[in-house]
Amino acid sequence: MTQALTSKKIVILEEESVTFPQGFKAGGLHCGIKRKRLDLGYIVSEKPAVAAGVYTTNIFQAAPLLVTQESIAKENKIQAIIVNSGNANACTGEQGLKDAYEMQKGFAAELGVQEHLVAVTSTGVIGELLPMDKVNSGIKQILDKENENELFFKQAILTTDTCIKQIAVQLQIDGKTISIGGAAKGSGMIHPNMATMLGFVTTDANIAHEDLLFALKDVTNQTFNMITVDGDTSTNDMVLVMANGLAENNPLTKDHPDWEVFKEGLKIVCESLAKKIARDGEGATKLVEVQVNGAFNTAEASAVGKSIISSNLVKTAIYGTDPNWGRIVTAAGYSGVPLEPNKLKVSIGTYTVFENGLPSSFVEEDVKQYLEQENVKIYIDLNQGDSSATAWGCDLTYDYVKINASYRT
Amino acid sequence: MTQALTSKKIVILEEESVTFPQGFKAGGLHCGIKRKRLDLGYIVSEKPAVAAGVYTTNIFQAAPLLVTQESIAKENKIQAIIVNSGNANACTGEQGLKDAYEMQKGFAAELGVQEHLVAVTSTGVIGELLPMDKVNSGIKQILDKENENELFFKQAILTTDTCIKQIAVQLQIDGKTISIGGAAKGSGMIHPNMATMLGFVTTDANIAHEDLLFALKDVTNQTFNMITVDGDTSTNDMVLVMANGLAENNPLTKDHPDWEVFKEGLKIVCESLAKKIARDGEGATKLVEVQVNGAFNTAEASAVGKSIISSNLVKTAIYGTDPNWGRIVTAAGYSGVPLEPNKLKVSIGTYTVFENGLPSSFVEEDVKQYLEQENVKIYIDLNQGDSSATAWGCDLTYDYVKINASYRT
Repeated sequence: MTQALTSKKIVILEEESVTFPQGFKAGGLHCGIKRKRLDLGYIVSEKPAVAAGVYTTNIFQAAPLLVTQESIAKENKIQAIIVNSGNANACTGEQGLKDAYEMQKGFAAELGVQEHLVAVTSTGVIGELLPMDKVNSGIKQILDKENENELFFKQAILTTDTCIKQIAVQLQIDGKTISIGGAAKGSGMIHPNMATMLGFVTTDANIAHEDLLFALKDVTNQTFNMITVDGDTSTNDMVLVMANGLAENNPLTKDHPDWEVFKEGLKIVCESLAKKIARDGEGATKLVEVQVNGAFNTAEASAVGKSIISSNLVKTAIYGTDPNWGRIVTAAGYSGVPLEPNKLKVSIGTYTVFENGLPSSFVEEDVKQYLEQENVKIYIDLNQGDSSATAWGCDLTYDYVKINASYRT
Repeated sequence: MTQALTSKKIVILEEESVTFPQGFKAGGLHCGIKRKRLDLGYIVSEKPAVAAGVYTTNIFQAAPLLVTQESIAKENKIQAIIVNSGNANACTGEQGLKDAYEMQKGFAAELGVQEHLVAVTSTGVIGELLPMDKVNSGIKQILDKENENELFFKQAILTTDTCIKQIAVQLQIDGKTISIGGAAKGSGMIHPNMATMLGFVTTDANIAHEDLLFALKDVTNQTFNMITVDGDTSTNDMVLVMANGLAENNPLTKDHPDWEVFKEGLKIVCESLAKKIARDGEGATKLVEVQVNGAFNTAEASAVGKSIISSNLVKTAIYGTDPNWGRIVTAAGYSGVPLEPNKLKVSIGTYTVFENGLPSSFVEEDVKQYLEQENVKIYIDLNQGDSSATAWGCDLTYDYVKINASYRT
């Protein structure tokens, strides 16, 4: 699909991010939640932007998620996002909720906008109160010119991440240039249905709230909800999109002739960020992609893909460059999908390893060599229908254990 | 419950196993599937025994499971079990099925019993054909007197296990002494709903097939289906029970006054074996028990327990002796159970770490010290109802990754 739409001129810009669309600025600083690294960031739109969000399914939603959802509900718009790392403000009770409101109020005052136009997000350790003196003094300085820098923002949202995650695309719609930019963080507690990941997407497209939310949910299901690092769904995940309309295209609705172009652009941004999160999974050395074809429906294709990408045994085998198709077949078999063993085909890269209920003859050394690459693709064909899905994850390594036996989430 | 029933004289014998009940013998030898260790074992009852089995829910059921289920279905009895380790005979197609039948036929001939009275089980590498010359020659010698030894049987079923797993109990019913003995193997690919685990239970109780199966299913749901090592459900799991009736009690039915005593005895055997499998999880250094109370129903209690015991983040935290209650709360929160955050109470050992939606004040060093023990207990109270469940698992360590990055399942 990406290929086909390239003719519609979707330009992908790997080095751009949330301030690429018109009318957005971003920045960050070190306020002291973390010892040394940047820990407070912002995105601001020059005018209120139509907003849409998707949130963790974990029943323990952190305080900032409650505040942000409530605020967006008021008029489906936000103008700014304030985000801290190093502390999740989760399981912090009444005081945590007060602190989230205080962050919102403080940043709104600095900006001179209504409080409900500021979204609040946090990521980091669970169950500790935010050091509000540090956060408040950070908020007072964060709009200073020397802190306005998109890179500072991208750095300020990281926790155990080893690198920043960014992407932008440019589309032509109604003779106007529309841009969509994204930044994300996420490394551990990553699992389908949102995880300790935060995604921030900005666009200058003109689009109504309900259409933006519809597009975001659909795209999230195919991208952020198809990655896993460790099967744990966190308390703090969210993806926020701000659309400030400065591109002045005709409003994008499902009936707009270029609706699919916009959605494809949004998908490219979200998929790119999702894959970058999976690749940067705690301790990971490889990005693993599982493509499932031939399913009766998308839900079944997704279930098989997620089952394989979540298997600790598959993940350790890939780390050990072991062409262990038995574990892949086993994980497909316990996915809950009524697949037919004798129709299943499994390939690792271009090597068919299982077909017609039996292992294929392949040269072990060739597949081992393929698995030594940083990007590993596994293809599953259920040979039952026409539906497909793709899931992304990473290998399971000594370093995953090391990081998580010592790091306090 | 165990406590209460002890008055009914359930005697627990940790050093006994499958040949403790009257009329059973067992043995094993090295036939050459593995390089050096024992790899072929048997249990034989002196008369046909009422049989019941539970099997993996994985859609890829291995050949021996098909043969065993088909055989038991004939008259709900078996007289013998032949089992090999080192090769799972799974994903081996038509030839694999032929090989499983050949094992059955060969051992039936040695015993002089009908073929369908022999159950066949296998565990080990997936997708390789059994070396039938070695297996056949092993079967020809296995009944020789020098191979008859319960210890050889218990050793012959192991794969990555580091120790044998056994238990027996003795009950008094109808003035007769009834014994139940068990042996099991299992270390990796262990997850609720059966895993690469095999369980063998023998009893001299007099009981009909449907009652035995009812009791086995109920007990399995509370024991073998409540353990996890790595979340992977294997192709080969089964638990078989043989009841040869030699104790000559009145038939045990649900109306028998001592029905609950028998079920409790069976549960003690299965729970003990299940916990031994969890403790011997690949690379594990600790047995972790999660007790969930105060749930609306057992299914919800089980779901919360399994969610916590399956979390890689909880498992690595326990390995690192980190009192990381945030990960426990998070795992409860994504279990899918509609629990109320403010009612949840979490204790690690005797230390309350989370209550009323907030972390409790506890001395970190005390809980850290508690977590250094080999047996770790986590107590969850949902404070919503009266139902309970217990789940068992183990910590996630460097050695888990090491074992699975190199061992070919």
